[in-house]
Amino acid sequence: MSTINFWFDFASGYSYPAMMRIAPLAAQAGVAVRFRPFLLGPIFKAQGWDTSPFNLYPAKGRHAWRDLERVCADLALPPLRRPEPFPQWSLLPARVALVGLAEGWGEEFCRLVFHAEFAEGRRIDEVATISGILAPLTPDPERVLAAARSPPAKAKLREQTQEAEQRGLFGAPTFITADGELFWGNDRLERALTWAVRGR
Amino acid sequence: MSTINFWFDFASGYSYPAMMRIAPLAAQAGVAVRFRPFLLGPIFKAQGWDTSPFNLYPAKGRHAWRDLERVCADLALPPLRRPEPFPQWSLLPARVALVGLAEGWGEEFCRLVFHAEFAEGRRIDEVATISGILAPLTPDPERVLAAARSPPAKAKLREQTQEAEQRGLFGAPTFITADGELFWGNDRLERALTWAVRGR
Repeated sequence: MSTINFWFDFASGYSYPAMMRIAPLAAQAGVAVRFRPFLLGPIFKAQGWDTSPFNLYPAKGRHAWRDLERVCADLALPPLRRPEPFPQWSLLPARVALVGLAEGWGEEFCRLVFHAEFAEGRRIDEVATISGILAPLTPDPERVLAAARSPPAKAKLREQTQEAEQRGLFGAPTFITADGELFWGNDRLERALTWAVRGR
Repeated sequence: MSTINFWFDFASGYSYPAMMRIAPLAAQAGVAVRFRPFLLGPIFKAQGWDTSPFNLYPAKGRHAWRDLERVCADLALPPLRRPEPFPQWSLLPARVALVGLAEGWGEEFCRLVFHAEFAEGRRIDEVATISGILAPLTPDPERVLAAARSPPAKAKLREQTQEAEQRGLFGAPTFITADGELFWGNDRLERALTWAVRGR
């Protein structure tokens, strides 16, 4: 079975529709998905940006929010809530996701975080939000939060972010096939899946 | 009949597939296309950029060229030639296009310029290239080149570029429907056409 690496940041707007679309589309294509949460912050910083380009370039930002609204409507997702502040600080959910992905409930956790953020307008940097999402997924959210704050979990996210940078990621979502082909953007998901299946 | 404004810069890589796709897709959708050449340079400058973001941000640029190669291959366009230098200086073809669009041969001229640039690797800032493209389109290329260099033609392109900036354009290609909805990017062409036809 072909595999695709799905790199995303919980703070990233276009990672939201990609997250909501990828599981059924990949299943249909017969492609396994490896979820790879990472942090865009350090990568943006290396490009000289201290925040999202949507904030740095107002005309681009205006279009992006409007476009994302249209994309969500086309997918019949709930009306888009613009996170406040944007971007959200995604460190905590990213660390928790890595714990969950190793334990089997990570994919559902990822979808629920994006839903809380972009459909409900909740803050994903707050422990209360993350605990609430964890409650139905795992018997002991406190244990998970402690594991997410442990040195190995911190190191794992750091390594994952370094790998993203080494692989030439500059934004999210990004899809990378097993043969190393890189596709950037929610609108490239279908193309990335056909590449994963047949190459080219 | 609905109308869509197709804003493009001859220097812009993703304007190339959009230019090659738009006429048949719009005809199929029953949408009239208004061709709007403009210059991205002044708009990039206002954002603090002195060249294309593909040059300013190497990881983004690497992906863009590779992605554009894939897009051209998917459309069965000739293998992509990366313009040298990039971006090309698009002032001359933009002025000539405005003359041609008023005279009825402008759309074919636009397609031929993009083909010369991205399929043949020719310099579109050179008079010889533009004359060669004009030869089969108009009985007197010299007259056209003189008209393109006249003060009214220069003023027209300046106004068009100012209008682009006022409308919030920040890149190319951009599609704007009659009700003012803005779509950025070759990959938004289909969505812009459905909006032009039925709104939303």
